[in-house]
Amino acid sequence: MGFGEIDQKAINSIRVLAVDATFASNSGHPGAPMGMAPVAHVLFNNFMKFNPKNPDWLNRDRFVLSNGHGCMLQYALLHLFGYALSIDDLKAFRTVDSITPGHPEAHDTPGIEVTTGPLGQGICNAVGLAMAQAHTAATFNKPGFTISDNYTYCFLGDGCLMEGVSSEASSLAGHLQLGNLIAIYDDNHISIDGDTNVAFTEDVVKRYESYGWEVLVVDDGDTDLNSIEAAIKKAQQSKDKPTIIKLRTTIGYGSLNQGTHGVHGSPLKADDIKQLKQKFGFNPDESFAVPQEVYDFYGKHSSAGAAAEEEWNKLLAQYAEKFPKEHADLIRRQTGDLPEGWEKALPVYTPADPAIASRKLSETVLSKVESVIPELFGGSADLTGSNLTRWKEAVDFQAPSTGLGDYAGRYVRYGVREHAMGAIMNGLAAYGTVLPYSGTFLNFVSYAAGAVRLSALSRVRTIWVATHDSIGLGEDGPTHQPIETLAHFRALPNNMVWRPADGNETSAAYYVALTSKHTPSIIALSRQNLPQLEGSTLEKAIKGGYVLQEVEGAQITLISTGSEVGITVDAAKYLLDKHSIKARIVSIPSFEVFDSQSKEYRLSVLPDGIPSLSIEVMTTLGWERYSHEQFGINRFGASGAYKDVYKKFEFTPEGISKRAVATINFWKDVPNIRSPINRAFEQLI
Amino acid sequence: MGFGEIDQKAINSIRVLAVDATFASNSGHPGAPMGMAPVAHVLFNNFMKFNPKNPDWLNRDRFVLSNGHGCMLQYALLHLFGYALSIDDLKAFRTVDSITPGHPEAHDTPGIEVTTGPLGQGICNAVGLAMAQAHTAATFNKPGFTISDNYTYCFLGDGCLMEGVSSEASSLAGHLQLGNLIAIYDDNHISIDGDTNVAFTEDVVKRYESYGWEVLVVDDGDTDLNSIEAAIKKAQQSKDKPTIIKLRTTIGYGSLNQGTHGVHGSPLKADDIKQLKQKFGFNPDESFAVPQEVYDFYGKHSSAGAAAEEEWNKLLAQYAEKFPKEHADLIRRQTGDLPEGWEKALPVYTPADPAIASRKLSETVLSKVESVIPELFGGSADLTGSNLTRWKEAVDFQAPSTGLGDYAGRYVRYGVREHAMGAIMNGLAAYGTVLPYSGTFLNFVSYAAGAVRLSALSRVRTIWVATHDSIGLGEDGPTHQPIETLAHFRALPNNMVWRPADGNETSAAYYVALTSKHTPSIIALSRQNLPQLEGSTLEKAIKGGYVLQEVEGAQITLISTGSEVGITVDAAKYLLDKHSIKARIVSIPSFEVFDSQSKEYRLSVLPDGIPSLSIEVMTTLGWERYSHEQFGINRFGASGAYKDVYKKFEFTPEGISKRAVATINFWKDVPNIRSPINRAFEQLI
Repeated sequence: MGFGEIDQKAINSIRVLAVDATFASNSGHPGAPMGMAPVAHVLFNNFMKFNPKNPDWLNRDRFVLSNGHGCMLQYALLHLFGYALSIDDLKAFRTVDSITPGHPEAHDTPGIEVTTGPLGQGICNAVGLAMAQAHTAATFNKPGFTISDNYTYCFLGDGCLMEGVSSEASSLAGHLQLGNLIAIYDDNHISIDGDTNVAFTEDVVKRYESYGWEVLVVDDGDTDLNSIEAAIKKAQQSKDKPTIIKLRTTIGYGSLNQGTHGVHGSPLKADDIKQLKQKFGFNPDESFAVPQEVYDFYGKHSSAGAAAEEEWNKLLAQYAEKFPKEHADLIRRQTGDLPEGWEKALPVYTPADPAIASRKLSETVLSKVESVIPELFGGSADLTGSNLTRWKEAVDFQAPSTGLGDYAGRYVRYGVREHAMGAIMNGLAAYGTVLPYSGTFLNFVSYAAGAVRLSALSRVRTIWVATHDSIGLGEDGPTHQPIETLAHFRALPNNMVWRPADGNETSAAYYVALTSKHTPSIIALSRQNLPQLEGSTLEKAIKGGYVLQEVEGAQITLISTGSEVGITVDAAKYLLDKHSIKARIVSIPSFEVFDSQSKEYRLSVLPDGIPSLSIEVMTTLGWERYSHEQFGINRFGASGAYKDVYKKFEFTPEGISKRAVATINFWKDVPNIRSPINRAFEQLI
Repeated sequence: MGFGEIDQKAINSIRVLAVDATFASNSGHPGAPMGMAPVAHVLFNNFMKFNPKNPDWLNRDRFVLSNGHGCMLQYALLHLFGYALSIDDLKAFRTVDSITPGHPEAHDTPGIEVTTGPLGQGICNAVGLAMAQAHTAATFNKPGFTISDNYTYCFLGDGCLMEGVSSEASSLAGHLQLGNLIAIYDDNHISIDGDTNVAFTEDVVKRYESYGWEVLVVDDGDTDLNSIEAAIKKAQQSKDKPTIIKLRTTIGYGSLNQGTHGVHGSPLKADDIKQLKQKFGFNPDESFAVPQEVYDFYGKHSSAGAAAEEEWNKLLAQYAEKFPKEHADLIRRQTGDLPEGWEKALPVYTPADPAIASRKLSETVLSKVESVIPELFGGSADLTGSNLTRWKEAVDFQAPSTGLGDYAGRYVRYGVREHAMGAIMNGLAAYGTVLPYSGTFLNFVSYAAGAVRLSALSRVRTIWVATHDSIGLGEDGPTHQPIETLAHFRALPNNMVWRPADGNETSAAYYVALTSKHTPSIIALSRQNLPQLEGSTLEKAIKGGYVLQEVEGAQITLISTGSEVGITVDAAKYLLDKHSIKARIVSIPSFEVFDSQSKEYRLSVLPDGIPSLSIEVMTTLGWERYSHEQFGINRFGASGAYKDVYKKFEFTPEGISKRAVATINFWKDVPNIRSPINRAFEQLI
């Protein structure tokens, strides 16, 4: 198909909208939208399959703007193609409470698949989306019923390529032979520090070839629409390799400063805008003015997309008749609800059961629920045997040609790539048919902090199986022993940190994590064995905090989490035996979930009148919110057998008792001791 | 030079020590040491220049074990070559308080240059060490006086190559043409999940060629010592490219399970050890037994190293005569002390000075001190113009052939590679002659969390210029606005977080950061302008927390940091005007530094008797340690002009006053209000 005047007008409309919106908000990045408008036009209008009236259509092509600062490109496209994003929304670009924030956010804006902006994340999300598509196709397609065959397209810039996380995901995507993934690299030679030759002189073509990608080059991304079209067409033919198209563009094309970093992160000046509009045949006195024929032109493509969805719906209806079970499963998955009664599979324990490491308890949960939650899609960053994330009969998610698994497989060998794993999970979750979880050591979830933050911000359900969660990992030593990690992730909004103390609490952690459709979870799990506690139940633990042992006339509340709860139980006995002190015991496996309970309930757990002491082998920072006094570790750990390390830091019944006695003495003269639950005012949320 | 029986005996001694130590500690990783013993032997004995009696000799070759889990290899070498690491230290491998912890830690063990274990970090540290060497040579060498010409060698495994951080640093190292860097890749085809073909099938040779490295391949790393030697020799000849040698080895060479992941992370079984010792000609009934001739053989190399240092010292003495100024500078730098009187260069402000963004105040500090602290070695992750990290006349650290700078340049264009930047800073700091600082947005320091943690653990002086530190960055929105970030890094042991409120506090932050030889700092700086405060001085601010405004008969203490201190000052006026409430104001620019003051001082700042309210536009988590009530943001931010965003979250004089009134009311019935500074017991440190 040839390109004509209308194509150029459409491209220039995108450019002008980006220029107008950044000028109006006096902020933002016009350069990338102006440079990438041609490829965006060709991709959206000549290739992409979508229905703006239903941005949730399962088999739509996915688009990810990894260079998210160029979001006016995406907002302009969404508007022009008829998504629920008005010209007023564009005018409100980068203003408070608009649906056009400074970087694309998935949860608020129709047509935005994933939240991008932090560089390197989007390309990883795209890998996740492509993996989910391959898995969905392998799981649900039947002869004559191609329910899933969408592509995932991703734009990315130099910044994304420099970030290591993109290397991790790209290497994995090549290994996984994801032919359904097409990335377009905006090779504009400009980053914020100026010409990319100051820092980025690697051979990108060779690098992506080394990952096993198909690499195509288009030399003129500014005007050669036919070559762009040919490259995307060729990329679609690559069935066992992802493709990257290296597209030479001119940043800020049309501006007097085009090709310089002057157009990267600042609006164009008024004069420049004037000459640009004149050059492009637009009225220089108008802003946000789109020629009607551009709307009409794009409207045709959108109508074709709606018709394609209708066709697909018919196919799905036939599928429902022939494969009712699969159909019901596919429909249910997209709601985010789990199969009815799934929770019956969760294991229950009594104190008579043996002591078991919580990573092992986690393995049992996964093994029990995997068959009732078929969307569960796991993996580990090369620590499968340590994280215990793989159920026994799992099939690996691998390209069939490798002989190591197939795309219907539900277990991913992520390699030692924690950050990409986190970002890929965000893409997997965004696709809509899988529920991703992954394992690494708790300490190395920090490597993925950038991705975890975006899980929380974009409100997706991802689960980290974070084993070896403390000094209790022992010999590996301080380099591997988390101290600050839980405080970090507890401080992250819309993120659940769980640190279960035994089997019932582990089941509770999974129960809440699996049923929280819009919140990621980090489940911190022990390497060492933990006893099954008297007083723990799933029903209590899903409240995030509860009274494990109540005692009439208690003089102190001991509060703990995870592996320290069992030791705290022993400490309470020790206090009674040696000091005749009565201590009640509270377990708070999840701050965030406990915080969401009623004040009345929270005060029943942490009541007024007696002092409290928290016990956790980590930083004390943050525990002041729940306890009067804190016993923790505000230094790095130590390498040695775990019992020796616990002894070194005095996390023993004696060590805890000593501090409990000090707490009681310190608070004994204070009348009407107030629980920290009482607050002068509510926080804004 | 040919290799003989003694070489084989030495190699097998290394293997047997690794086997014995992991067996004794019933933990650890024997496989990598056994597989890499041959190359380690050739490298250490035939190439490396070092003096075990003085591990601090400036011109020693540096060795980094990026696959730090194989540390018994390094411990064995250090012992055999005569470092202060006895056979008893080897026997104490992985026990509490030994100098042979589970992963190598730089601060405690002689001969360990950097702390490794978290994968991917070591190779980045090596890049930093190589950059520092290139810079030192360019700065201090004179015709006839080659003061610095050491190499940096780095071992790394598949795990390091999979981590994205290694990609970032390797790309930069190729760009910087670091011919002094030689990496040896242990291509053993095994990681924890088994054969690397499950997740890692990229073409490593091609990938490193794409980065601009020299790539050499040795097919038999188990027995072909001559090829290993030839490859290292060839690598040394590569003057404008770093070299990576891909060395095919057999993990756990000599074990019955060699070549499998069974020997990766677990000790060998007793039977296996027996056959191995027999095969290697060792007495199977002895443990930790090293043939005397091996000690003697290695001792010769160590003596040669000592002699080389002596020669160098003579050269240095002549250098001192001819270039006394340079000599004095070089000697001083190695002590970590700054030039006398340097602090006079720090700017001082009065309330009459205009409002200035603290990122701009930071730029002024750097511009003023750079000439008096010549070891200052800066950079930014592609945000130079936003972070304001580059003084005007700075020369870029670049390969001279590029025409963009030279190796004597002191400003690094890191590219968008935050994680590598952090890890490279750790290597730069470890070298001993430069003092690294680097900029990015505060939110993206989180990308480098893995490296920041190791800065703190290994006690190096690195400085993050972390600008755009809050919702105050405005339009870029929630993807870029830190909420959890300060809590995260405040919870990290041995790490200083600074959030200065004005010019004097910014000078104070730099004063403490630059003079703390063994502690990294993160200086959080505003994008927006901040007024110069009445009551702030450098002398007060270096205490980490101080009374900014004292008021007789105050009813509340308002505590704040950074950009909110100025608003809090306005709030205090508002409280007096509208509510006749007297409020005293405390600024706590650094928790960690404030915590290190005497209790008496801290109580004078946060006294008993009146309630306190903290004000910071971030998570409240952790503030409970200092304040009775907390005003913060426990959700994600918003995209918009910064004043609108502050208003949305009520961080205005009115909004603060409302909460101050609530605080006073809530606490008015409590007699003898206790300051949170009072604690029942001291934390272990």
